Amino acid sequence: MSIKKIASFLKEVQDITILTHISPDGDALGSSFALCAALEGMGKRAKVVLPEPLPAHFAFMNWKTALYEDGLTAQTLVALDCGDSKRLGAAEPLLEQAETVVMLDHHKAGTPFGDLCFVSPASSATGEIIFDLLSALEIPLTPEIASALYIAISTDTGGFRYSNTTPRTHQIVAKLLELPFDAARVNRFLYDCVPYPKLKLTSLALDALTFFENGKIGVIAVSLDMLRQSGAAPEDTDGLTDYTRIAQGVEIGILLKEKGPEEVKVSLRSNEYADVSAIATAFSGGGHVRASGCVIHAPLAQATEQIVAAAAKILKG
Amino acid sequence: MSIKKIASFLKEVQDITILTHISPDGDALGSSFALCAALEGMGKRAKVVLPEPLPAHFAFMNWKTALYEDGLTAQTLVALDCGDSKRLGAAEPLLEQAETVVMLDHHKAGTPFGDLCFVSPASSATGEIIFDLLSALEIPLTPEIASALYIAISTDTGGFRYSNTTPRTHQIVAKLLELPFDAARVNRFLYDCVPYPKLKLTSLALDALTFFENGKIGVIAVSLDMLRQSGAAPEDTDGLTDYTRIAQGVEIGILLKEKGPEEVKVSLRSNEYADVSAIATAFSGGGHVRASGCVIHAPLAQATEQIVAAAAKILKG
Repeated sequence: MSIKKIASFLKEVQDITILTHISPDGDALGSSFALCAALEGMGKRAKVVLPEPLPAHFAFMNWKTALYEDGLTAQTLVALDCGDSKRLGAAEPLLEQAETVVMLDHHKAGTPFGDLCFVSPASSATGEIIFDLLSALEIPLTPEIASALYIAISTDTGGFRYSNTTPRTHQIVAKLLELPFDAARVNRFLYDCVPYPKLKLTSLALDALTFFENGKIGVIAVSLDMLRQSGAAPEDTDGLTDYTRIAQGVEIGILLKEKGPEEVKVSLRSNEYADVSAIATAFSGGGHVRASGCVIHAPLAQATEQIVAAAAKILKG
Repeated sequence: MSIKKIASFLKEVQDITILTHISPDGDALGSSFALCAALEGMGKRAKVVLPEPLPAHFAFMNWKTALYEDGLTAQTLVALDCGDSKRLGAAEPLLEQAETVVMLDHHKAGTPFGDLCFVSPASSATGEIIFDLLSALEIPLTPEIASALYIAISTDTGGFRYSNTTPRTHQIVAKLLELPFDAARVNRFLYDCVPYPKLKLTSLALDALTFFENGKIGVIAVSLDMLRQSGAAPEDTDGLTDYTRIAQGVEIGILLKEKGPEEVKVSLRSNEYADVSAIATAFSGGGHVRASGCVIHAPLAQATEQIVAAAAKILKG
């Protein structure tokens, strides 16, 4: 399916509901609200329907959302940034009610669904695909659309730092920045605005950072007590993985999250050469060479000992 | 002076020494080594002469530098990213010895010097100017040149996040990324690789972060004891300013650095509306609306009290 065919289809319909994946991130939200604004600009009725209230982190954008409970009225559903219909969560059954389902995504591994599908793994973000779709629809960008697409692409490329960032990514962003929106302000809210409990948790985590094997392994073990002490939510631990591998000289970073008395979730990262998927596999987990994970059923201190021993073994051989 | 005229001049000379400012940053170094590699590629003799050894943070690039002590042999000097000849530090007298001095810079406020000057405040980084100069010289980019220019532009725009980032910035970076260098690796070394003492200092600083005026003022006071405890160098405090204003709801961020028993250096930042230059001025300091600084001659606790009181007054109107 070409993006032009999807554009032709969207030109013909009047009423569109946009869905995206659960725990929506910047790409999911930015892509959805950019497309919504563009379709409204064409005089259509469009809305973004989310499984949960807009994450607080994106409140600065004043995006208007509807919730699943409000029901589905549109005959056309567009699912964005969602490689598998299961990732729609509670909205998955809505696919049955729609007359036509359009799916646009950039994830490599997935199970395309719907009537009109376009999957482009070469795109750094679904936001890049929406940019192309709007070009095909011949819709001029507005500051509202440009800022939403900027958020989509910036967040999914780690601020243009990850290896998925391409020349095309920067070409698109160059065009977005031609619109008069305050990109520096957007960046401040995206990257320099952290709720205090999360900041407190980061402080505790940095304090708990320890090293093994001459500083080649960095470990942070987040106890339930640290969550209580900081008032942080379990999802606030997400960004801490980066701190395990940020110290100069670290090759393997390990984040352990205590979930219960005998349940520890482990995230593994490597910087240059170590295969951390081999470590995860030894604990019935999985993943990639540079990022993997597993669950260890043991108290936190014991789980730490076990995973560090396994990581040291990988480093040595 | 046009960039084309400077290109014509450089085509004619054989022996070039490149200088840049003291405490060289990513733009100073990236611009210098990009130009050096390009001139060498043209069969010329070129070298970058620094006032101090290459900062450890850039060691991953394996750039080869000479030091001032090695003496000046070239008749042509090119000074980069240096708005004022004073910023050349100990190298300033070398200007007298050179036959021709070329100056390329992007800083707004400065005192142009030399025989051939090109100052472009619209450029986010001197790296952008070097990109244009190489185009004028009709030199094809190499991975070595592209990675150096990438570092120059990325660091001077805060990873493309500051308001000096323009569409042209992203257009140039799109062209740099067409060369086969590992930009993700460069980004990791630039942004995700911190010496342990600095990380430890960050942990202590986050722990010391306190708030005033209902969370609108964020304060970190770095004592000499914190430096000793962490083993960090005084310059490791530089990045901490960001943490004073990163907590959600903060408008004014204040970093106090104890320098001696009665000497405290203060950095002030604001996020949206507060004029922190007015606070600095009250303590005989200065700066801009969003970033300013001053020195308070008092013990750390007392200086903190005084500056917070002044900031609270500004917030109230």
